[in-house]
Amino acid sequence: MVVSQPVASLIVIGNEILCGRTQDTNIAYIAKKLSSVGIDLLEVRIVPDDEGQIIKAVNELRTNYTYVFTTGGIGATHDDITPACIAKAFGRPLVRNEEAYRILDEHYQERFNESRRSMAMMPEGVTLIDNPVSKAPAFQIENVFVLAGMPSVMQGMLETVLPRLETGDPFYYNTVTSNLLEGTIADALTDIQNAYPKVSIGSYPFYKLPDIGTSLVIRGQDKDLIRQATDAIIQMAQSFGAVLKVDRQV
Amino acid sequence: MVVSQPVASLIVIGNEILCGRTQDTNIAYIAKKLSSVGIDLLEVRIVPDDEGQIIKAVNELRTNYTYVFTTGGIGATHDDITPACIAKAFGRPLVRNEEAYRILDEHYQERFNESRRSMAMMPEGVTLIDNPVSKAPAFQIENVFVLAGMPSVMQGMLETVLPRLETGDPFYYNTVTSNLLEGTIADALTDIQNAYPKVSIGSYPFYKLPDIGTSLVIRGQDKDLIRQATDAIIQMAQSFGAVLKVDRQV
Repeated sequence: MVVSQPVASLIVIGNEILCGRTQDTNIAYIAKKLSSVGIDLLEVRIVPDDEGQIIKAVNELRTNYTYVFTTGGIGATHDDITPACIAKAFGRPLVRNEEAYRILDEHYQERFNESRRSMAMMPEGVTLIDNPVSKAPAFQIENVFVLAGMPSVMQGMLETVLPRLETGDPFYYNTVTSNLLEGTIADALTDIQNAYPKVSIGSYPFYKLPDIGTSLVIRGQDKDLIRQATDAIIQMAQSFGAVLKVDRQV
Repeated sequence: MVVSQPVASLIVIGNEILCGRTQDTNIAYIAKKLSSVGIDLLEVRIVPDDEGQIIKAVNELRTNYTYVFTTGGIGATHDDITPACIAKAFGRPLVRNEEAYRILDEHYQERFNESRRSMAMMPEGVTLIDNPVSKAPAFQIENVFVLAGMPSVMQGMLETVLPRLETGDPFYYNTVTSNLLEGTIADALTDIQNAYPKVSIGSYPFYKLPDIGTSLVIRGQDKDLIRQATDAIIQMAQSFGAVLKVDRQV
C-alpha cells in the first residue's frame, strides 16, 4: 500500500523546443522513469531561456509538488542562465561551488578556461548531482533537481538522483488496441471506469487511414485491479466484434 | 517591420503524455507552424485530464498571451473533459452547439448515439473550428483555440484557424554544427551574440560517442541579420579549425 504518493513536475528550459527545431524526448523519458518508481508526474512546463519565466515556473511548482525537475541551460555558453535563475528563485547568492570547481578543474586541466569555470557557479548551499557522462555536475537545491538538457547526460544524472527520492508503488499500464471507434464503446467504457475507480482508463483514438480505431490504456498502482479492468475491457471489445491487440505490463 | 509581435502558449491535455506512454509530437508541429507565420510560442504546459489543472492553466495563460491553443480531451469518452473545463474557466454554461450537432448528425447518421452527441456540448457562444479529417468540430472561445489531440486531426484544425490569427514576420533559423566543444567557443560566441542582439543564438552540445560537438542555432525575424550572424559564427568556428556543417533556412 502507498502511504504517501509523491508527485512531481518538470520544467523544460530551452528555446530549441519552443521554436520546433528540436523534438523533445526528455519528457517521455523522465515520465516513464518516475512512473516506474511510483512518482506521479503531474505537470510539465516548457519555457524559453528567459529569467522571468524560469523563476516564475520554479517558484510556482516547488511549493505544489514533492519534486521539481528542470532540464537545460546549465552549460558554458551565454544562453545557459538556469543556475543564476534558480539562485534568484530561492533568494540565494550565486557562488563558486568549490566541489564542482575541483571536479571541472580535474577534468578539463589545461582546457579549464573562463567559460568552463562558469559551470561551477551555483546557488549557495546546493548538493551536487554527479554527471557520469561528461563530468560537469548538476545540482539539487531543496526539492528542485537541476539537470542537463542533453538526453544522454540528463539520463545519467537522473540515475544519480533516484536513490535520493522518496518513491511509491510503481505505476503499470496495459494497452488494449482495437479497430473500434471511440463513439461506439464510450458508454460501455464509462461503466468499466466507474466499476474500477482506482485505475485510470484513457481512450486514445487514432485516425490515419487505413488505420482507424482506439487504444485504451489502463493505468494504476494495483496490479490486480489493472488486470481485472483489462479483462473487462477485452470482454467488452469482443462483444462488439473487435479485432484486438493487447500489450500487458501486468 | 513587425508592428506588434503576437505571442502564444499551448496547453497539452493528456495523461498519456505525462505517464510517458505517448511521445508527444504536437508541440514541435505547432511550434514550427506558428513560428513560420511570425507567432512566437513562449510557453507550453502539459497537464493531466484534471479539471482543476486545466482551468488554472487556461485562465493563467489566456490573459498573458495573444493566443492560447489546447490539444486533447475533446472526444466522446469519459476522459474527454476539456470542453466542460473551458466552459468553467470562462464562467459560461456548457450547452449544445446546434451547428456542431448538425455536422455530427449528418456525419454519423444512424450511428449518432448518446456519446457522440456529447461532442456537440460546448461553452456558450463559441466559434466552431472545422475538422477536415474526422468531421467532429473543435471550437474557438475568445483567444483560446481548443483543438483535438490526435496529430492528423490537430494539424487539419490548425490549418483551419491560421487565417483567423494576427500574424507577424516569420521566424527563420540557420544551424551551424561542428565538432567544437561549447567551452572552447563560449567566449567568442558571447561576442557574436552581443554584436547581433536582434537574433537569438542558442548553443546545443551533443555528446553521444563518437559524436561530440555543438549545434549553434541562429534565429530571428530579420533575414539579413541572421545571415550576418551565421557568417560570423562560421568564421569564428573555422578559426578554431572546426569541421562544419551548415543548414540554412536563409
